[in-house]
Amino acid sequence: MKFYKKSKTKVIIRGAAFLILPFILTACTGKRSTQSQQITSKTTPRKVDTTTGTVSSNYYESMIEGGKYKVSQQRGVSISNTNNMNDLMAFDSGLLNYDHKIFSTDKYIFQEGQNLTKRMVTSWLNRKSKDNPEGLNLEDNQSTDPNKRNPLVLQQILEHDFLVKKGTGYNLEGIVLGLSINSIDYYQKEQYGATLKTPIKDEAGEKYAREAADKILSRMRKMDGLKNIPIYLYVYREGPQDSLVGGEFILSAKAKTGDKFTEWTQINEKNMIYPTINNEKPVNQKDADDFNNFKNNVQNFFPNLAGVVAQSHYEGGTLKGMTIKITTQFYSISEITSFTQYCANQANQYLPKEIPLEIDIQSASGTMLAFIARNPTDTGFYTHVFSSY
Amino acid sequence: MKFYKKSKTKVIIRGAAFLILPFILTACTGKRSTQSQQITSKTTPRKVDTTTGTVSSNYYESMIEGGKYKVSQQRGVSISNTNNMNDLMAFDSGLLNYDHKIFSTDKYIFQEGQNLTKRMVTSWLNRKSKDNPEGLNLEDNQSTDPNKRNPLVLQQILEHDFLVKKGTGYNLEGIVLGLSINSIDYYQKEQYGATLKTPIKDEAGEKYAREAADKILSRMRKMDGLKNIPIYLYVYREGPQDSLVGGEFILSAKAKTGDKFTEWTQINEKNMIYPTINNEKPVNQKDADDFNNFKNNVQNFFPNLAGVVAQSHYEGGTLKGMTIKITTQFYSISEITSFTQYCANQANQYLPKEIPLEIDIQSASGTMLAFIARNPTDTGFYTHVFSSY
Repeated sequence: MKFYKKSKTKVIIRGAAFLILPFILTACTGKRSTQSQQITSKTTPRKVDTTTGTVSSNYYESMIEGGKYKVSQQRGVSISNTNNMNDLMAFDSGLLNYDHKIFSTDKYIFQEGQNLTKRMVTSWLNRKSKDNPEGLNLEDNQSTDPNKRNPLVLQQILEHDFLVKKGTGYNLEGIVLGLSINSIDYYQKEQYGATLKTPIKDEAGEKYAREAADKILSRMRKMDGLKNIPIYLYVYREGPQDSLVGGEFILSAKAKTGDKFTEWTQINEKNMIYPTINNEKPVNQKDADDFNNFKNNVQNFFPNLAGVVAQSHYEGGTLKGMTIKITTQFYSISEITSFTQYCANQANQYLPKEIPLEIDIQSASGTMLAFIARNPTDTGFYTHVFSSY
Repeated sequence: MKFYKKSKTKVIIRGAAFLILPFILTACTGKRSTQSQQITSKTTPRKVDTTTGTVSSNYYESMIEGGKYKVSQQRGVSISNTNNMNDLMAFDSGLLNYDHKIFSTDKYIFQEGQNLTKRMVTSWLNRKSKDNPEGLNLEDNQSTDPNKRNPLVLQQILEHDFLVKKGTGYNLEGIVLGLSINSIDYYQKEQYGATLKTPIKDEAGEKYAREAADKILSRMRKMDGLKNIPIYLYVYREGPQDSLVGGEFILSAKAKTGDKFTEWTQINEKNMIYPTINNEKPVNQKDADDFNNFKNNVQNFFPNLAGVVAQSHYEGGTLKGMTIKITTQFYSISEITSFTQYCANQANQYLPKEIPLEIDIQSASGTMLAFIARNPTDTGFYTHVFSSY
């Protein structure tokens, strides 16, 4: 997951690493781009063919144009040193989670960000420089000392658009903007050199994010059609590179109109691994105990159960979701099937109710063998054993 | 997936290879075992602690003894040259499928086979020899010529037990016995040498299976408590090594009592890949067309969709199930989520109804990203996007 990063070249365009195939670097021109205020052409109402449709009210319909999915205009752009595989998924899916709190799935159509282009985002994520006056990361002060150099703070920018059907087209009604900042900037003095760290204090990171957010907002307000579109901001802080969970959302703000975000609100999120590591204190002891009861039961039940680990997600100190990974060796489909049933029963008995719960049962090599899930709207657990003909 | 097999050592004990970690070869004594009629101790009614419980009437409850899952007495035994990864899953899950046609999930408890032990099955799968008189595979005739040597025909033996609660214990009420035979015996003349093939004609394989089944039955009838237990037989024929689907069940029989199977019945199963390969004629042209419509739609929808392939399962010429694998690169959770919704809608529109349907959406490296399924009893599709905190 580590990408080599020359300390003076800061942004690459690539595929999200957890999705494996690297994006071809055809658009990697950010460093030389001085004119980054390219905007996408827009008409209101937009003409598009149709939407994806949905099979569940838990999901948005999304935009299709000419029969094809409308991918993000900044698809694949990220700073090169994304710290943690979990951050890639957690920032992205966490933002989608906040989307749902603002835009209901029965009224709004989801669209990947169409306003922030690859060129813009590449330029913005780069350091500010003579060649890149739009850069939102601090200028390179030529220091390579962990405590003296200017760290890269801004790590990712995401845009989600929300539309409503109007006549034959769709009107843009709101945008959710996600900014991700680093808690630690990992860097190397020389290629293949040791990885060094510049930690970024919480207050410094937040201050930075607020300023960058307003700069981005004022640039967006100048774009065609965005003058009066409500824009909702969520700021995420990435976790350490060696963490088994992603980072957390830390701030939200709004800008119904105008080029300053208002209603800044602290978000109190926390992701934890159970069983806790290094004597870390659980956010909630009862949740930790519940999980341990579940874990002990399934481990006693089945021989050689290798790993039972939970990612727990807290908002405002309350457990809001849990993803459990169970890794082991099975010898037959009937073993997997029986184990899956047993797990679902133990989950039902011991694990917190009324939160989204996912249990992935995997082979030692990471092949998914079975899975168990319960959404808060579900009456019971869904279980599935993967098979083959 | 290929295991080296010295042509004179025929049976190994190992973990099912698709479950990755090889089983430790502590019990690999089959070749020297002349006394293979070891039987497990049994009492009727058996004393066990409890059952797994189940969360769905689609699954059996299974036996737990002393708080632990009762694993098979022959766990991990197979001949070394299992041809095809799909065969490992297809034989196993196919047998479970036939179990359901005989023993209802609401009345019967499932138990991994407790009568055929590791030592027995190892001895039986080995070639018959002076040292191994119980061997059910033909004696080694010392030839290494593909057309003159005696092929290994019998490949796997599986036992599934079905119990009913009686008082404080459980009574064994029936057994399903699965035999798997080869259509091609793959072998090597020398270590690291070229893999050679001895094809086994359909009639020869069936005749062999019938004889082996009766031998196994008469041995089982001598075991403690099995004299009057109904035993149901299913014979499976493994597919070629390079097939993208497993083989097929070909024969069934019954023995309510006695040591000869009766009511021999041909099973007409067929597993096919869609789109068809090498101009193979589809079992059902409409099913092939339906799948192609689905495939074309999802491939047009999303850029760079790498693979869309279906395993189709036919019984008696009728489509009974379909498992589709879609492999591609995604750049965000929102893309995966939108694609999953679109896929479910297209599946609903184009794919055959009232059969079990599974769509696995994977990254190029095989990581499961999302999943869509519909059981015949479901009212609609279940969709799940795998996530991380």
